[in-house]
Amino acid sequence: MNGAESLVRTLTDCGVDTCFANPGTSEMHFVAALDSVPGMRPILCLFEGVVTGAADGYGRILEKPAVTLLHLGPGMGNGLANLHNARRAGTPLINVVGDHATYHLQYDAPLTSDLEGFARPVSHWMKTSKSSKTVAGDGALAVQAAMRAPGQIATLLLPADTAWDEATGPARPLTIAAPAQIADGLAGIVADKLRTAERPAILIRGKALQAEGLEHASRIAAKTGARILCDTFAPRLRRGAGVPAVERLPYFAEQIVDFLGETDLLILVGSTAPVSFFAYPDKPSDCVPEKCDVMHLAHPHEDGVQALEELAEATGASGVKPTLVALALPDFATGQLGQSSIGQALARLLPDNAVIVDEAATNGLAPGFLTATAKPHDHLALTGGSIGMGLPVAVGAAVAAPDRKVVCLHGDGGAMYTLQSLWTMARENLDVTTVIFANRSYAILNIELGRVGAGVGGPKALSTLDIGNPNLNWVSLAEGMGVEATAARTAEEFNVQLESALATQGPRLIEAIL
Amino acid sequence: MNGAESLVRTLTDCGVDTCFANPGTSEMHFVAALDSVPGMRPILCLFEGVVTGAADGYGRILEKPAVTLLHLGPGMGNGLANLHNARRAGTPLINVVGDHATYHLQYDAPLTSDLEGFARPVSHWMKTSKSSKTVAGDGALAVQAAMRAPGQIATLLLPADTAWDEATGPARPLTIAAPAQIADGLAGIVADKLRTAERPAILIRGKALQAEGLEHASRIAAKTGARILCDTFAPRLRRGAGVPAVERLPYFAEQIVDFLGETDLLILVGSTAPVSFFAYPDKPSDCVPEKCDVMHLAHPHEDGVQALEELAEATGASGVKPTLVALALPDFATGQLGQSSIGQALARLLPDNAVIVDEAATNGLAPGFLTATAKPHDHLALTGGSIGMGLPVAVGAAVAAPDRKVVCLHGDGGAMYTLQSLWTMARENLDVTTVIFANRSYAILNIELGRVGAGVGGPKALSTLDIGNPNLNWVSLAEGMGVEATAARTAEEFNVQLESALATQGPRLIEAIL
Repeated sequence: MNGAESLVRTLTDCGVDTCFANPGTSEMHFVAALDSVPGMRPILCLFEGVVTGAADGYGRILEKPAVTLLHLGPGMGNGLANLHNARRAGTPLINVVGDHATYHLQYDAPLTSDLEGFARPVSHWMKTSKSSKTVAGDGALAVQAAMRAPGQIATLLLPADTAWDEATGPARPLTIAAPAQIADGLAGIVADKLRTAERPAILIRGKALQAEGLEHASRIAAKTGARILCDTFAPRLRRGAGVPAVERLPYFAEQIVDFLGETDLLILVGSTAPVSFFAYPDKPSDCVPEKCDVMHLAHPHEDGVQALEELAEATGASGVKPTLVALALPDFATGQLGQSSIGQALARLLPDNAVIVDEAATNGLAPGFLTATAKPHDHLALTGGSIGMGLPVAVGAAVAAPDRKVVCLHGDGGAMYTLQSLWTMARENLDVTTVIFANRSYAILNIELGRVGAGVGGPKALSTLDIGNPNLNWVSLAEGMGVEATAARTAEEFNVQLESALATQGPRLIEAIL
Repeated sequence: MNGAESLVRTLTDCGVDTCFANPGTSEMHFVAALDSVPGMRPILCLFEGVVTGAADGYGRILEKPAVTLLHLGPGMGNGLANLHNARRAGTPLINVVGDHATYHLQYDAPLTSDLEGFARPVSHWMKTSKSSKTVAGDGALAVQAAMRAPGQIATLLLPADTAWDEATGPARPLTIAAPAQIADGLAGIVADKLRTAERPAILIRGKALQAEGLEHASRIAAKTGARILCDTFAPRLRRGAGVPAVERLPYFAEQIVDFLGETDLLILVGSTAPVSFFAYPDKPSDCVPEKCDVMHLAHPHEDGVQALEELAEATGASGVKPTLVALALPDFATGQLGQSSIGQALARLLPDNAVIVDEAATNGLAPGFLTATAKPHDHLALTGGSIGMGLPVAVGAAVAAPDRKVVCLHGDGGAMYTLQSLWTMARENLDVTTVIFANRSYAILNIELGRVGAGVGGPKALSTLDIGNPNLNWVSLAEGMGVEATAARTAEEFNVQLESALATQGPRLIEAIL
């Protein structure tokens, strides 16, 4: 058993069984170990940004890490943007990055780089294996680190000789720490505060945005009048019919300020106080209303579900029936195609327990509003703001949940970043329906140009925001990677195409030409 | 004049007039300054790996920096792989990376990251501007740093408020240092050594691989019997008819050892001693023959052309006529399509003074051999080993040299990394003919799997090396981005398609189905 085999064996013993991969020469022993050790499924992606985004989607759904297989510093580099998003999502994720053999680094061969430097900014935990004898133990540590609440990025750097040299054997799985419990009595203190607040709100993030946590929150809301909120970009939110409703914070700073209005108590559960996504001259960065108290009921690494249960008890809301959203489906739209007509069709047709991966950007508002009363589903958002996460996260979500329909809503600008995802959807026959909002523009930037006070933009400025000229043809792009695709120019066309795509198993793409 | 305007004005005053861009909100003032300050051409790329690769290609051709415009840590992250290649190429290049406003960082908004951490591994020079008053001066420093021989990566991190706050004015251009001269007398010492060596060789890299340096080298070779060599992956090599021939080092370590054979003196001019690209169990990393002396005539930051001229003088070769390659064009091939038939057509049809961007990987051997006696051209190679450089470098080369035909030879695996390049070729109507070698495989890895001793590969391993199933359709992909494309399955088809593409101005793609 070589080091690579001891590592793969350790990972599978720890329950890590899925590897999104884009390997190179220095990872060949790891690749070979996928056959000599049973239990690890490799999924090839044709670019590392797809690899890491897929692992993010997988981890968000299954709440356990997939492993990425990356090639040296530049391979890690290509994966960094979606690791940034995964880090912001609190996704458990393990990177295995091959490096040159330890003794080869001194020769400064062309692919030599500061691999630890590449990995550090996105890694909660990072270790360079020093010997084939320690690789297995390092792998077990990586799993343990990835599983620390709410979920961490663990990066194991694997010099080629530590993979090919002889190992002793696999390492035992380590104890996975449960999320920390909140301090005794804290729920009581927050409950007291809630009683005297006039306009309280609870801002939730993390696992508490699934059914159980939301039901506790709904009970508290019914009893105390608190609003139940989530971030603009929550990693994963359960919503739709049969689930308590959550109000999502709007995107722009001044909208958040308006939205929070007279809120005088903001209780944080797994979240942090709302801030502006970007800075703007003469606009606030901190979006908490001036006279609002902010209290942390549960930090991100703490058990938010338990915290809400304790708060429900402390407020006397335990016996209250949570208010669940009733199913309400809009009619199909006719005529012009736009985010509203798309949202109507989506809300109407969305199958039970689907996963919506949302990087629709400026076109996401109406679909988000309209699906609020659709069949119950999970909603995965762009947590770190680095565009190009949607298609890869859809890949990973579909691998994680093969029995659920994944719907990926994507702006055309962001989708171009990691369009290689479509090929993996085709190869693995993943059940993903992708809707590309083809407005041929980095539309948000046309808004931001004015908001930052940079004016309306001259011809050169506007040329950098316009992704038309030439127009992308997403049907061609998808077909070029083996994914069946159609274009829709009217609501009627879109309705028919979406119905067909959602009724079929396997990848489909609809280019919604806006 | 705000900080961004003072920076753009300083850059243009320094002769930096081309900006490959993929901006976001934090760069909007820089974008607006492209209109308020004359003289900077923005070129939009739909992914940052295209931005940085294009700046590499531009810098290799013009020997001056383009500026990249990147968005925060993740935008920098997406550009790192091609910055790694540019760093290995010794390309002058300036990154301008927007960051959150200085006062906004404390709020840890979703896109906040360790931006300096992202930038550091690939940057020779890095600075975070602290104020709108110093941005212009920092810009001038960045140009000076980028122009340090042989060419450096200079990264200027630009917090949004330093762009939008008021500046005093532009900064004066700084002195650009000429490459260092080699020590007095060194050429004489090397010349003495050359006289007593039985099988000497001169390994050249950098500017000395253009006509003037090669002519000096050829004189020395004629006088002393030294072989003239270049690295497997030279940033830029002048070759073809009318240029002295250079032998290119082979790729694999044991081939290099064989190739150098009984070489007893290796003189380095702008290069380093040859090493194995990767480590392999039981194969040498150091490829210099055991009894071979290695002498540095010129380090990479020194003037290799001048050094060769001094060595020519010291060896009494100054008056010798250099041996120039005679034009010899192969016939067109017929029948099966393969790297040889492609190489024949390319060598036969290559226009005068073309630029070949070569990421053909395993399919590059025959085209490289066959074009050695074609019309004179520049050859740009994959210097850092990070695949996905070819298409972007072709973009940059075509922007830098609008009057020259650029031919991009690309493996299908690598081309998928940065296929967004094709869109920029279409938008800017760049004169690039791309040939995709569609073997549907990471073919090199099938070789490397065995070479590293990992066996022949089981089904899982082989699934990660095979990029067929489904096959990519490059005609669809190119057309989806507005580039005219055809597929060739025979030599005859390829010959006709290449002739048509090279006879036309503007982007074309040929998918060579192997």
